[in-house]
Amino acid sequence: MRIKQRGVLFVVLVHLLFAALAAGQTKREINFPDILGYKTLKCDLHMHTVFSDGMVWPTVRVDEAWREGLDVISITDHIEYQPHKQDIPTNHNRPYDIALGRARERNILLIRGAEITRETPPGHFNAIFLQDVNPLDTEELTDAMKAADKQDAFIFWNHPGWKPEHKGWFDIHTTLYENKWMRGIGVANGDTYYPEAHQWALEKNLTMMGNSDIHQPALERETSPENHRTMILVFVREKSVPALKDALVEGRTAVWLGNQLIGKRKYLRAIFKKSVEISKPYRSYKGTVWVEIKNHSDIDIEIGRVGKQGPGTLTLAANATTIFKTKVDEAAEEAELSYVVRNFRIAPDKGLPVSLKIDLK
Amino acid sequence: MRIKQRGVLFVVLVHLLFAALAAGQTKREINFPDILGYKTLKCDLHMHTVFSDGMVWPTVRVDEAWREGLDVISITDHIEYQPHKQDIPTNHNRPYDIALGRARERNILLIRGAEITRETPPGHFNAIFLQDVNPLDTEELTDAMKAADKQDAFIFWNHPGWKPEHKGWFDIHTTLYENKWMRGIGVANGDTYYPEAHQWALEKNLTMMGNSDIHQPALERETSPENHRTMILVFVREKSVPALKDALVEGRTAVWLGNQLIGKRKYLRAIFKKSVEISKPYRSYKGTVWVEIKNHSDIDIEIGRVGKQGPGTLTLAANATTIFKTKVDEAAEEAELSYVVRNFRIAPDKGLPVSLKIDLK
Amino acid sequence: MRIKQRGVLFVVLVHLLFAALAAGQTKREINFPDILGYKTLKCDLHMHTVFSDGMVWPTVRVDEAWREGLDVISITDHIEYQPHKQDIPTNHNRPYDIALGRARERNILLIRGAEITRETPPGHFNAIFLQDVNPLDTEELTDAMKAADKQDAFIFWNHPGWKPEHKGWFDIHTTLYENKWMRGIGVANGDTYYPEAHQWALEKNLTMMGNSDIHQPALERETSPENHRTMILVFVREKSVPALKDALVEGRTAVWLGNQLIGKRKYLRAIFKKSVEISKPYRSYKGTVWVEIKNHSDIDIEIGRVGKQGPGTLTLAANATTIFKTKVDEAAEEAELSYVVRNFRIAPDKGLPVSLKIDLK
Amino acid sequence: MRIKQRGVLFVVLVHLLFAALAAGQTKREINFPDILGYKTLKCDLHMHTVFSDGMVWPTVRVDEAWREGLDVISITDHIEYQPHKQDIPTNHNRPYDIALGRARERNILLIRGAEITRETPPGHFNAIFLQDVNPLDTEELTDAMKAADKQDAFIFWNHPGWKPEHKGWFDIHTTLYENKWMRGIGVANGDTYYPEAHQWALEKNLTMMGNSDIHQPALERETSPENHRTMILVFVREKSVPALKDALVEGRTAVWLGNQLIGKRKYLRAIFKKSVEISKPYRSYKGTVWVEIKNHSDIDIEIGRVGKQGPGTLTLAANATTIFKTKVDEAAEEAELSYVVRNFRIAPDKGLPVSLKIDLK
Repeated sequence: MRIKQRGVLFVVLVHLLFAALAAGQTKREINFPDILGYKTLKCDLHMHTVFSDGMVWPTVRVDEAWREGLDVISITDHIEYQPHKQDIPTNHNRPYDIALGRARERNILLIRGAEITRETPPGHFNAIFLQDVNPLDTEELTDAMKAADKQDAFIFWNHPGWKPEHKGWFDIHTTLYENKWMRGIGVANGDTYYPEAHQWALEKNLTMMGNSDIHQPALERETSPENHRTMILVFVREKSVPALKDALVEGRTAVWLGNQLIGKRKYLRAIFKKSVEISKPYRSYKGTVWVEIKNHSDIDIEIGRVGKQGPGTLTLAANATTIFKTKVDEAAEEAELSYVVRNFRIAPDKGLPVSLKIDLK
Repeated sequence: MRIKQRGVLFVVLVHLLFAALAAGQTKREINFPDILGYKTLKCDLHMHTVFSDGMVWPTVRVDEAWREGLDVISITDHIEYQPHKQDIPTNHNRPYDIALGRARERNILLIRGAEITRETPPGHFNAIFLQDVNPLDTEELTDAMKAADKQDAFIFWNHPGWKPEHKGWFDIHTTLYENKWMRGIGVANGDTYYPEAHQWALEKNLTMMGNSDIHQPALERETSPENHRTMILVFVREKSVPALKDALVEGRTAVWLGNQLIGKRKYLRAIFKKSVEISKPYRSYKGTVWVEIKNHSDIDIEIGRVGKQGPGTLTLAANATTIFKTKVDEAAEEAELSYVVRNFRIAPDKGLPVSLKIDLK
Repeated sequence: MRIKQRGVLFVVLVHLLFAALAAGQTKREINFPDILGYKTLKCDLHMHTVFSDGMVWPTVRVDEAWREGLDVISITDHIEYQPHKQDIPTNHNRPYDIALGRARERNILLIRGAEITRETPPGHFNAIFLQDVNPLDTEELTDAMKAADKQDAFIFWNHPGWKPEHKGWFDIHTTLYENKWMRGIGVANGDTYYPEAHQWALEKNLTMMGNSDIHQPALERETSPENHRTMILVFVREKSVPALKDALVEGRTAVWLGNQLIGKRKYLRAIFKKSVEISKPYRSYKGTVWVEIKNHSDIDIEIGRVGKQGPGTLTLAANATTIFKTKVDEAAEEAELSYVVRNFRIAPDKGLPVSLKIDLK
Repeated sequence: MRIKQRGVLFVVLVHLLFAALAAGQTKREINFPDILGYKTLKCDLHMHTVFSDGMVWPTVRVDEAWREGLDVISITDHIEYQPHKQDIPTNHNRPYDIALGRARERNILLIRGAEITRETPPGHFNAIFLQDVNPLDTEELTDAMKAADKQDAFIFWNHPGWKPEHKGWFDIHTTLYENKWMRGIGVANGDTYYPEAHQWALEKNLTMMGNSDIHQPALERETSPENHRTMILVFVREKSVPALKDALVEGRTAVWLGNQLIGKRKYLRAIFKKSVEISKPYRSYKGTVWVEIKNHSDIDIEIGRVGKQGPGTLTLAANATTIFKTKVDEAAEEAELSYVVRNFRIAPDKGLPVSLKIDLK
């Protein structure tokens, strides 16, 4: 796009977009609807800094989160693993303390957390909503868990499918589960999906978690449907620490991983319903209608036909309107197309059944 | 973003986005707010096809418009200039007739129009809302104008700054103006801005127009703040042909050219007000606040400080949230920052004055 | 990127890149190496204009080809199918005649061609290197073929997998093949791959073809690894019409479809060898080396390990350098890693075996 | 681009590009030609880590440099300013020591350096090619300079235009200059150009420097013409520390800032000549030729006509071919078009004069 005007002899190129973004001062919001009377918070509750094996200063995690449109983060440096210890003496509470001022300025809810780190099995666990990380620095795992529990932490198993040769649900996990020292489980971590963990979450009513576990600096300038960190959508009464904890305890989450949304049927259905808007169609010939569907969310919704009417598959592109043509019963006042949302997973091998209602009156 | 899962031995790369867009089946809506009780239609009322000196079949203009999120188009092939005549015999009404079915399927309002083409001066004029183009194919310009007027057309002067060596307002323009054979004027055409035309529009109360005048195929896959065709925003009572004509006659337009919006103060002010949302700020130190401003529109809003408070210049990026820090009077209940929107032009050299109100209670 | 300088009070945004590209004046070359003493031409020998069922004026096909870095095109409008006939009277030779001047200016080799169009079976065939299309406009298919053959045309079967319910190799195809009225076959057409046709090409020594068959305007601003039209690489003695024909007759082609290259083993191997450059590695510990591989071509080369050394899979990104770490025999002077290039298809289910030699001296 | 194949029931979306880049394993090379018998190294000799006021761990600077295609970097943390001292005790040599292993694996030449930091005036100075940073940690500036000089460091003034209210060439600068404690000067730093420094560099024969001075994590996934860090091109005999130092001492540099190249006439001319390739033109009519110019470099070359022939202005887009039409003397065997390269600055207000020779034989 060029603008010509008289008298402009000297052209000044201003790469405005990059300048603004480089300064970290602009963010695009993440688009997922509020549902069922709850506000939808975008959360990443697993990340690292130079204080354990991460590569950035704690404030960077706030800047990244703001830029990417997150509402809540928890810095969860390893308690037991600090490869930079020679240069940065152990101080478990510093990442939170350093980042807090910036988080407030950026309107990011910062949760104090830590990663309890043991060989697999049992594996790694995040404890969040802590007041003090130090008491968790114990020899025995159960002591760390008790210390976290004493602070009324919410604890979750991070990446149950990690180290495939050692993976599985062991007695220790039963112990943690029964003591409520493990109330959530990562159905995803970073870019990886764990179908077993998803299954366990359904069977044992564990809260479904999925976070970035980011160690490197984030390269995203903003969140987009094609490129985003793995995050949890948490459905809260309000944006506050207590409300967030309530929601996690009660399992009100969904996980956004790549082009998939993983969660309980009722939450995924509510997101679908609020995201999708079907136009009144145009009838071109007898029995043929043109239908526009708007998708107001940030996820491309991939649907496959279950019934007899409608296109075989369709991608309702994020933040866009998709048009398609279909045959309908001419006499009917409404058509109801049966589909399954393939990338909304309500179980490891199960998409979300939905119905698209088209007003033919 | 990578998704790993067990058992995927054969990887299938699906460039889904491009596939969908290539098929022309997905569009991103253009974001400008409805204002002052009117609906804001995005219109391009000047374009060409193979039936004059354009390079595409008429239905392509509908596909492009749909893909780019337009609501209204008019195909305005030259009446007097048909370089493809050897292969495509003259038939002034065909572009509209050919494109109509597709326009209906795509929910695009298609307006029958034509470009009355004379040497400059007087230049080129678009007549739209015609029933039949043929009566306008006359030797004398005034006869063509009368024929258009007889059909109650809306006629506008397309690119008054074209051919700089011959430009200017001549007696013929006064004649056209006084007979209401010219009720609008292009303050922009394609990528070019015409400051004199803008001045004339203000002085003579001509409706401000600005269209693409596209001849080549459009290469945009969608409309974006960085790359969009020049278009008119028309503020209408409803999306219909009569309502559109009323709005044009009454001058309810603004022109989106590159990173600028050109129009009357009242319309630009209303767009600014509905596009911009200022958060309740966070007070970090005494007298220092952090303010977030969301811009819900598709235009980067570039503001410069007029008063004493606030950053010197700021770009409120389109569809994004911008954060800045400023000093305020600690005791005040509200701060009011005086700015001018540099790229909202209410006159050739004049931006739109605005006030940013920050709630300090 | 921002450049600040004294005295710049008025900022002028110039979207330079888009402006230049919109004008169609800039192209990025397509990167595939010349091989085996031949020059590699990038060709699209199947496309349509408004003269049959395409959507653009013939010169647009030249502009698109130039912009996308092609060397050779053939406009192949249907002889028997002209849905725009009401407006554009049949004239089979016009698309070539209209486009020729522009092609010369743009240094594009334009080949006169046409699509002989019959129900499937037998299907659609392109005849190229014609002097006059008119004699091919016959009732009987064989008459058309004879007329093309009389002009010493090269004829190929376009999309043998089209209309799956009717597909297959029928007697008529044997007739065409035995008379040399069909010397090439589309192993791909548009975005679709035809494994049966690929198999037939191998068995019957038919030249492998793969073209865009584009009807709509092309939306690509340039050719990129992620988004490009399907095209044929033809390995010629020189850029001329006779040399191109020789190469086609002799089967010196490969087809670039999505992220795949389809062709005979010897051509794909030569492209691999000339595209890939392996650095002298850095030894970090005993037996561990860091190796950089440059890929100078426009295709992401996806390799999978066959032997025991080296990473399991690796994508050698187009026009980029990939680094990896591997263990080697410390005492050896050279390591030879056995891989298969998964996306270089030498048969429907067979990748190209390659060996990566690493100099350890 | 879509690839359809039989039997693919389950689609797996693999955002391959992002995956590869996120892993930091792929880089695109920076394209500038080797000139005058020298190899052109791309260098950034000014950057920070958590060991002073930077935001990343030292190895991140290596990863970023590799990804962006740099050959040489120097980490130059402030000696006198360490805001993270509470958590990271001062240890001037650690950033280099930590980053060295990674640099070797990535084939990056890492130079030990530090920033000598004083109020402006005199300002900030980088000393590079140090063996030990500690002796430079002195009270007096001249002592630090002497300590650096004793190690045979190359010292340059970083951002002479910083803090405009205090800027200028003071006696202290004369002292540094005369003692050869300042042999280079930043004509650019980060995104800012310093015309006075450019003038001083020309008058006093100081080596022209220009670096990123990066503190935040780099967000670039690769270097591109539109978005790249400010860097120095250094023309060396070979890629080695001594050869680099020689080149800096002898002033063999050019600075790439935004869309500009700043340097001595002979280097910029050599880059232009090796970057630009003019095709043998096509003559369309009498005296009209079509000329293609390839630009093999990573900078858009913006030329403006000085003579009478050729287009008024032209952007030779980076890594692309530009076509234009011009009139020439029909009888001539060669046309020579006189231009100035506007964005190759040989002095603050002076572009590089060039001549485009077109072979008309």
